[in-house]
Order: sequence, then structure tokens, then C-alpha cells
Amino acid sequence: MTQLPAHPHFVTLEGGEGAGKTTVLQALRASLQDDGREVVCTREPGGTPLAERIRGLLLDPAHEPPAPETELLLMFAARAQHVRETILPALERGAWVLSDRFTDSSYAYQGGGRGLDAAFIAELERRVVGLQPGLTLLLDLGVGTGRERTRGREQEDPGNRPDRIEREHDDFFERVRAAFLARAAAEPGRIRVIDAARPAVAVAEEARALLQAWKAAQ
Amino acid sequence: MTQLPAHPHFVTLEGGEGAGKTTVLQALRASLQDDGREVVCTREPGGTPLAERIRGLLLDPAHEPPAPETELLLMFAARAQHVRETILPALERGAWVLSDRFTDSSYAYQGGGRGLDAAFIAELERRVVGLQPGLTLLLDLGVGTGRERTRGREQEDPGNRPDRIEREHDDFFERVRAAFLARAAAEPGRIRVIDAARPAVAVAEEARALLQAWKAAQ
Repeated sequence: MTQLPAHPHFVTLEGGEGAGKTTVLQALRASLQDDGREVVCTREPGGTPLAERIRGLLLDPAHEPPAPETELLLMFAARAQHVRETILPALERGAWVLSDRFTDSSYAYQGGGRGLDAAFIAELERRVVGLQPGLTLLLDLGVGTGRERTRGREQEDPGNRPDRIEREHDDFFERVRAAFLARAAAEPGRIRVIDAARPAVAVAEEARALLQAWKAAQ
Repeated sequence: MTQLPAHPHFVTLEGGEGAGKTTVLQALRASLQDDGREVVCTREPGGTPLAERIRGLLLDPAHEPPAPETELLLMFAARAQHVRETILPALERGAWVLSDRFTDSSYAYQGGGRGLDAAFIAELERRVVGLQPGLTLLLDLGVGTGRERTRGREQEDPGNRPDRIEREHDDFFERVRAAFLARAAAEPGRIRVIDAARPAVAVAEEARALLQAWKAAQ
């Protein structure tokens, strides 16, 4: 396991499709803003103008699909930029940073899902990221349930079409979920697993309680 | 030095701005086509639709500049795609592949120019490229001469504006040149240095003679 410096004000949210990350992120932001602290909400892939353009390349099904290695390096290219341009400057001026996905997603999707070597991912993390979140909330959800929820979204809004990665098959998402849970088991102090099969309000409440406990412990 | 398998029909052209790579490439293509062989001419960054879009992100001065690490990973993301989608399929069907730039440029520009660790570049080369050209022709030119030539081009055609990397200062290009020459000194069997300060016709003629000698030795 990579031992990188963790920043206490850097919190990430992880989980598969349909787990409710967006709702939880809004609840956590509101909870932190109550204290009057600056809160930077960001996401991966993305978080800077260039990194958002890399996100566009990653998720667009228009051109030929990236090879697994291409996908991994594009993710880390965007992350290298995100860390330097957005995350570190925010932490240095005393803000909290809440990110919808971070390096754990690369271990889960490109490692577990695509089968790339975790040692190479760890080398990229050490070389170009150099930072871990203090707290990671993993919204865990069965693959079937997640798929039902994202299908429901698409029916409500036909413009909400699945991106290139969302179009993968169930066995891909089973490997992603297993990789997330394995990381949580290996780093129980940093990664807290939340059962996201429950109603969104209960999930958001547990996430908020975990964040409050984390803040109180700092 | 990384010892990767070299393919005899894979030839790359390297060198700084204004060294005349385009003219030489055309001469080499014509020389190979005389034999009736299929010749795939390609370039880096680029060489596939996705890799060309990555090239656009790399060279476009519109968004914030990439951090050196971002630039390196974008180059290797494009290269991973280029190798898998264009270079290997062409070599496997028996074609010659001529590429305007390849991994040596990453050692020169991101290693020498930006100061990134060559050991990390070698790790990326081993992990996501896994292939070396059989022959590399390095068009070597003094930085001042190269700059005069590219300025001349811009005056002839004001639409031919320097891209983000071409806008670097002379000391950057001096480091790039030194890194190219150091690689040539370390791998004299693969990398042949051509004095590109001479007239274009003489440069192209030497390049063609080196390629003919290489072909005859296979």
C-alpha cells in the first residue's frame, strides 16, 4: 500500500453509478459551510479547465475507445493537473476540499475493472499525485441496484445518457465494486463504507455524521 | 537504459523545431515506396483520432498550461493509443512505419526540457509502450538556427503560429537538444545523428542513405 501524506481537510467520495454521490456531496458541503469555512467542491476526472477537457476525451463515445493504458494515463494526467491547480492551492489557503472521486477510483475502475497492475497505479500515484485524502466515504451499492437507478434517471431525462464507462457490462462493475471494498478493508482508518442501498436521506445523514466525527477528531 | 524489443520496420525521426523533419519524412517515404512496400507515415503526439485530440489539448495555448507531469502523461496516453491502434497493426501486416517523433522526444522534451525524472519516463515506456524503433534518425540543429528557420516560416505564413511548446525559451531548447544528443551517444546503434544545419537536400540525401543501409542490413 502506498503511504502518502494525507491532508485532513481533503475529503473524497467514491462509489459506483447510482450510489447517490451527488446528493451526499451537497449534504456534506452544506454541513461544512455551516462552520463558515471555505469549501471547494470538485470532481474527477476534471476540476480544472484542462482536466475537464481530458474528461471530455475520456467519456465521449464518439472517437475510438481508449486502450486501458490510455484511459489510465488520461485519468492521471487530469489528476496531476487537478491536484496542482485546484486541490493543493485550496488546502494551502485553509479551505476544505470535497472531491467526487479521486485516486481510489483509478484502483477500482482501471485496476479492478480493466485489470491493470495495481503496482503501476501506485507508482503513478506516488509520482504525480503525492497526496491522499484524510477521509474517504465509499458509497457501496449492489451492481443491479445501481443499474436500476441509473436506468430510471435516463427514463426521466432522455438527455441523461450513459457515458462510455457507464456502458460497461455488469461483470466490469462487479470487479470495480470488489476493488473498492478491498481498498476499504485495507485502509479502514481512511475509507469508511456507507451502505448506499438505503434511502438517499439516510445515506446523506450517515455521511454527514461521519464527516462531523472526522472534524471533531482533528 | 531500457531494453525493449525493437522492430526493424519501425523508423522514427527526431529533432528540434526547424530541423526539416517534414522534408526528410517525405524523402524516406518515397524511398521505401519505391520497393512496393506499404508505408505508414504517422506522427506524435497523434496518429489516431483520439491521440490527435490529445495532441490538440497538449499544443493548444487556450486553456491553462499543463503541469510538467500532466504533459508527460498526456504524451504517453497518446503514445499508448498510437502504438496499439496504428503502429503495431501496421507492423503486423508487414508495413514499414515512419513516425515523426516517438518516445525519444519524451526523454528530450519532458525529461531534458522540463526536468522530469528519466527513470519515471523509462517506467512509462516499459509499461505502456513496450517497443522501440529499429532505426532513429536524429536531425540535429543549433537552437538559434532552428529558431531563425521557424521564424521565417511564420513570416511566410502568418497562420503558421508557434504552438505552446514552440513558445518556450532558448534554454529549454538547449536542454532538449542536449538530451537528444545524450540519448544518441548512449544508443549509437539505433540513433544516427544527422547534421541538419546543411541544405535540406543534403540532409534528406543522408537520411535516405542511412535508411537504405539499414534496409540492406536486415
